[in-house]
Amino acid sequence: MREIEVITTGGTIEKTYDEVSQELRNAISIVDRMLRRLKLPDSHVHVRALFSKDSRDLTDDDRTKILRAVRSAAEMTSSIVLLHGTDTLADTGDLLSKEIGASGPRVVLTGAMRPFEMKRSDALQNLTEALLASTLLVPGVYCVMHGKCLAFPGVRKDPALGTFVLDPPA
Amino acid sequence: MREIEVITTGGTIEKTYDEVSQELRNAISIVDRMLRRLKLPDSHVHVRALFSKDSRDLTDDDRTKILRAVRSAAEMTSSIVLLHGTDTLADTGDLLSKEIGASGPRVVLTGAMRPFEMKRSDALQNLTEALLASTLLVPGVYCVMHGKCLAFPGVRKDPALGTFVLDPPA
Amino acid sequence: MREIEVITTGGTIEKTYDEVSQELRNAISIVDRMLRRLKLPDSHVHVRALFSKDSRDLTDDDRTKILRAVRSAAEMTSSIVLLHGTDTLADTGDLLSKEIGASGPRVVLTGAMRPFEMKRSDALQNLTEALLASTLLVPGVYCVMHGKCLAFPGVRKDPALGTFVLDPPA
Amino acid sequence: MREIEVITTGGTIEKTYDEVSQELRNAISIVDRMLRRLKLPDSHVHVRALFSKDSRDLTDDDRTKILRAVRSAAEMTSSIVLLHGTDTLADTGDLLSKEIGASGPRVVLTGAMRPFEMKRSDALQNLTEALLASTLLVPGVYCVMHGKCLAFPGVRKDPALGTFVLDPPA
Repeated sequence: MREIEVITTGGTIEKTYDEVSQELRNAISIVDRMLRRLKLPDSHVHVRALFSKDSRDLTDDDRTKILRAVRSAAEMTSSIVLLHGTDTLADTGDLLSKEIGASGPRVVLTGAMRPFEMKRSDALQNLTEALLASTLLVPGVYCVMHGKCLAFPGVRKDPALGTFVLDPPA
Repeated sequence: MREIEVITTGGTIEKTYDEVSQELRNAISIVDRMLRRLKLPDSHVHVRALFSKDSRDLTDDDRTKILRAVRSAAEMTSSIVLLHGTDTLADTGDLLSKEIGASGPRVVLTGAMRPFEMKRSDALQNLTEALLASTLLVPGVYCVMHGKCLAFPGVRKDPALGTFVLDPPA
Repeated sequence: MREIEVITTGGTIEKTYDEVSQELRNAISIVDRMLRRLKLPDSHVHVRALFSKDSRDLTDDDRTKILRAVRSAAEMTSSIVLLHGTDTLADTGDLLSKEIGASGPRVVLTGAMRPFEMKRSDALQNLTEALLASTLLVPGVYCVMHGKCLAFPGVRKDPALGTFVLDPPA
Repeated sequence: MREIEVITTGGTIEKTYDEVSQELRNAISIVDRMLRRLKLPDSHVHVRALFSKDSRDLTDDDRTKILRAVRSAAEMTSSIVLLHGTDTLADTGDLLSKEIGASGPRVVLTGAMRPFEMKRSDALQNLTEALLASTLLVPGVYCVMHGKCLAFPGVRKDPALGTFVLDPPA
């Protein structure tokens, strides 16, 4: 049985539609609803909903909470998936990469360009890839989505392409 | 740019509904329709529709065609995904594992328990996992679906569980 | 509050996929699952699952049961929807039209060309139309689907067009 | 062949997600995409995309354009469907009801509480109901959605219930 810890912080992937305000927003975690759409008979996925925030609103304090949650999860498993808004995902990845030693767990950051609640969303694809990658990769911190596994540091969002890419070498 | 060769042979994953006969059957390849649902900006996926068959109807001749197609694909890329019916997927995996050397490509067999054309199908999850695994695993022949990568030989379908498992050691 | 009685008999609309036999078949009623997809805040829909059969297998006895169920429903409401396989839907419609007086309820027969469980099914469209028509039409027996309300007698399935049409006048 | 004129003005039903601004907004008409999901073999649906606006932003000038478009459509068919944001749908319905005589066409206003682009949207249900009602009702101006046909004047949105209701009699 594979043990995987999913830590969720919100982000576009988990935005839901509020019929009263008529807006998309981060209100609750819906990762359980996503997981019910996947068939994972030999995986035990444990979800920890840390908070529900647009990643543009994350504070230093929030990132400290994430780091602490990752360290706590690493005591139980070496497969950790972190759901995160894409706007500042790279900042959190850089921090985790600096703080978590290379002998530590596999920490996979993922998110989505379109909310799971929308048709033709990339959310389920990215979660599927992140879960699998968290059991396959060598220890380290990664951004996994859109068919790619990119290792931190050196990853950034390319808003024009709508995906993550490797920084060009200096 | 990742180069991935997808060879499709039919199976449950590609069964479509015929409104006249009112049955599900293998008529045409629909893997292109599945691929359009995925966001793969840095992958170049080339599809080769070999044939469209229920895998219970595969002949020795069909398996020879599959072996030849895999060898031909291996000249172009080391990432090969084979869509295959689940009933005899293990037979084809065993054959490929015997014939393809360990220094060869990554050959990933996948399929589905429910056709892609049905709601709540595992088809897209399995294709997503197979594509990613074909770029990550060490050379060899694998069955990838339901969050697991199992190496041939020694893989079999467990009809009661509705998934693939490793043979118990002799 | 609109009171609507839905009587279901099976048919393509309710066929589900059996992963073991790898076939579509009528096993259980799934009309409750369909109804959960609709927003009907001022309607009270009561479901009566009569039996689950491919309509090619209906016997005279089955049609007697349907007639009795329609009469029983008519004691409670004038809005009755009957889910029925399309192959012999016209036979049942003709029978009901002969037996149920014009001063009786609105009986709306509907079904689908593709099972609800398949993507791009016409099931939900047809159920939506049948429910609305059952509250709007003058008393009588109708086939409602694909944007049309056709009155019995004189309705038949056109297999080539994949829909129902009016018999040409004699 | 049923001739139906669909006039669209935007509203929640047609909101799409902008991956750059990360918001839902009215940018283009997507009613053609909705119509492709419906099976309407004997209907000829003609779409006129008037403008794409959140109905809270409609001006008197916009309502004059709507009235003119309805009158123009009425010269071609008596079945007219108007897609409209729900926030001010009742205002437009009251205006049309006053200006269009009872001997005129059937004008059916509809919209949605969740955008069509979201999962579990009521958009397709409401469009299905509006199209059918536009061929069944007696001449007049109506709000059709959620299984109900309500005649103007005297219709208002109930934000708490998330649907339209009849005004209580004075």
